[in-house]
Amino acid sequence: MPQISNKGLAMPSSPIRKLVPFADKAKAKGIKVYHLNIGQPDIQTPQVALDALKHCDEKVIAYTHSAGNVSLRKKMAQYYQNIGIDVNENEIMITTGGSEAITIAFLSTLNPGDEIIIPEPFYANYNAFALMCGVTVKTVTSIIENNFALPPISEIEKAITPRTKGIVIVNPNNPTGYLYSQEELEQLATIVKKHDLYLYADEVYREFCYDGLKHFSTMQLKGIEQNVILFDSVSKRYSECGLRVGAIVTHNKEVMTAALKFGMARLCAPAIGQILAEASLDTPAEYFQNVYNEYIARRNYMVEALNKMPGVVCPMPKGAFYAVVKLPIDDADKFAQWLLEDFEYNKQTVMVAPASGFYSTPGLGKDEVRIAYVLEIDELKGAMETLAKALEVYPGRK
Amino acid sequence: MPQISNKGLAMPSSPIRKLVPFADKAKAKGIKVYHLNIGQPDIQTPQVALDALKHCDEKVIAYTHSAGNVSLRKKMAQYYQNIGIDVNENEIMITTGGSEAITIAFLSTLNPGDEIIIPEPFYANYNAFALMCGVTVKTVTSIIENNFALPPISEIEKAITPRTKGIVIVNPNNPTGYLYSQEELEQLATIVKKHDLYLYADEVYREFCYDGLKHFSTMQLKGIEQNVILFDSVSKRYSECGLRVGAIVTHNKEVMTAALKFGMARLCAPAIGQILAEASLDTPAEYFQNVYNEYIARRNYMVEALNKMPGVVCPMPKGAFYAVVKLPIDDADKFAQWLLEDFEYNKQTVMVAPASGFYSTPGLGKDEVRIAYVLEIDELKGAMETLAKALEVYPGRK
Repeated sequence: MPQISNKGLAMPSSPIRKLVPFADKAKAKGIKVYHLNIGQPDIQTPQVALDALKHCDEKVIAYTHSAGNVSLRKKMAQYYQNIGIDVNENEIMITTGGSEAITIAFLSTLNPGDEIIIPEPFYANYNAFALMCGVTVKTVTSIIENNFALPPISEIEKAITPRTKGIVIVNPNNPTGYLYSQEELEQLATIVKKHDLYLYADEVYREFCYDGLKHFSTMQLKGIEQNVILFDSVSKRYSECGLRVGAIVTHNKEVMTAALKFGMARLCAPAIGQILAEASLDTPAEYFQNVYNEYIARRNYMVEALNKMPGVVCPMPKGAFYAVVKLPIDDADKFAQWLLEDFEYNKQTVMVAPASGFYSTPGLGKDEVRIAYVLEIDELKGAMETLAKALEVYPGRK
Repeated sequence: MPQISNKGLAMPSSPIRKLVPFADKAKAKGIKVYHLNIGQPDIQTPQVALDALKHCDEKVIAYTHSAGNVSLRKKMAQYYQNIGIDVNENEIMITTGGSEAITIAFLSTLNPGDEIIIPEPFYANYNAFALMCGVTVKTVTSIIENNFALPPISEIEKAITPRTKGIVIVNPNNPTGYLYSQEELEQLATIVKKHDLYLYADEVYREFCYDGLKHFSTMQLKGIEQNVILFDSVSKRYSECGLRVGAIVTHNKEVMTAALKFGMARLCAPAIGQILAEASLDTPAEYFQNVYNEYIARRNYMVEALNKMPGVVCPMPKGAFYAVVKLPIDDADKFAQWLLEDFEYNKQTVMVAPASGFYSTPGLGKDEVRIAYVLEIDELKGAMETLAKALEVYPGRK
């Protein structure tokens, strides 16, 4: 039997999805599993998008332009302009979700052996995308005591080597929910410029900023216009995770030319998804207001409930819909599996994502989990009660 | 400005899509362009799929299972069983089109520096997928004089080196339309087994076999069950190119485990596409009979029309909906561009894919083009008339 590849062997299991088989077993035993592990919102997709599905009169579901439908790109350019990002339709390439935006951008700009720097904890799938491209991820640690703010810029600069080609910033952050300030991003821009690096900016949670804070985009940074490559997605903005529609946005023509060659090889992004994404751009402001109110209520409830549990520390996230939470436990991987295999409370249990998978530095995140507050308040209450009970009886409690 | 990657620089332009900007310019001048360059059928998507779109009552367009919806995989397993391929739902992973099936399978099984062997001419995007994985494509040449049959097995075996990890076979073939026989595939199986290689089998045109010939699948080969990795897609079978739903099918559990890790990293294949693909499996037999009749008529008309043109040679394709055609010209790349830039006949012109992009050996295919017979007969007549006129007046005619 031929050997599988080194990448196939080395590929990390997703900390978000690796416990799915255990959850399936728990469900098979009649146990209700609260899914706090995955960023799958329960928020309804905007009605304009669902209507577009019904009104879709295509008779032949054909390939689209490899860069995405022009009409979609023009309308997206308008969306960006409205939020202060000055791009045109030729500076946007539609991808199959944010995931493909990342892989195509990495393939277009990074050589095997190159290094990228990411503040940890970070969205674990960046490990997978880097591995696919033969790229090494270097991390600089953000700490829970500082709400996971950007590490000191001097620390980041220290991590730069001759192989460093770029820095990844996810803002608002997944998994921490931290919202980077304009000041932090401007500090980052100085070293991006000084060392002539790419700044890969994942801003898929742009609309999820709380407490009156406003999102500042890396595309608005001065002096590094050719360095910034934006990753975007409709998944979270419109609760359209399953559409698989994302985008690469950049002023850098060379990058766009290379990206489009990869885009042509895979022919196109999903055609029906593009139609719905275009319709979604007409979502009324009221939708976002409701979503905002809902998430604020969930966050406030959840953070308070968590911090009331003895030994639990949850910083107040200012964006996205995640928190990295410190628990009084020996090992979050064991705990997460125990929750699904050996625990139940009133026929209920909770699924969380162990945070170790979001760190590169061995040992970090061992007593932390990522929790996504993507369930409605009543469900979230059930989840928090169940988690509190679990922490009381978990044999590995510290 | 930071450098783009070596892969970004080396990435070949798609021979199918690279002339699109010239076609756009021709169209802007009011010229009708017959698209013979791309395998985008004009055949209507099955009504059961279009109905499924209308009846789609999802309120939240959510992520699916990373391997694809279980209901879709179960129904696909049934489809395979009906055509003599004995697989279950755990041996199928749904991908974003056939394209992603190829990249994930390559990433799961091939290391940078490994070699794969493909009979040329071959579907050009395999160059791109190989480049993405750092893999080298070695070719063995099929010749037009032999209708592009499998090259002698001894020639293929000669191309095997210690770095060779697999052989790719596209059956029925794109771009040649050649249908490999059971005997040819069994010959291939002997060297696959002897050298313990992967056999990557791209069978997306399985339903397009003509003149009473029956498709024999590599999944039916004995003794190499662990070596075969099938690539499939709904794109051509149901005229659903834009859905981006494909599959990796293999009995090899290790490969499937690795593939699923890559699958989890990109979360899932398009959700709505999966719903339509599942509905499409109920397409009545009558649909395929009509499609078959239509393609037979188109093929017969086109092959006759082409062979009537002085100096043109078109073998009779037995499958898919392509032919590689020899033209009395100096350079097919020049000719294809000239058609779009400098030629018109009654305000019409033709777009073809230069065949050089489907060969690796320099110089081969220089006077050949790939033609897709994906237009209805009346359109095809207009295209053939226009092509005949063009060949009469082309300055580089030989």
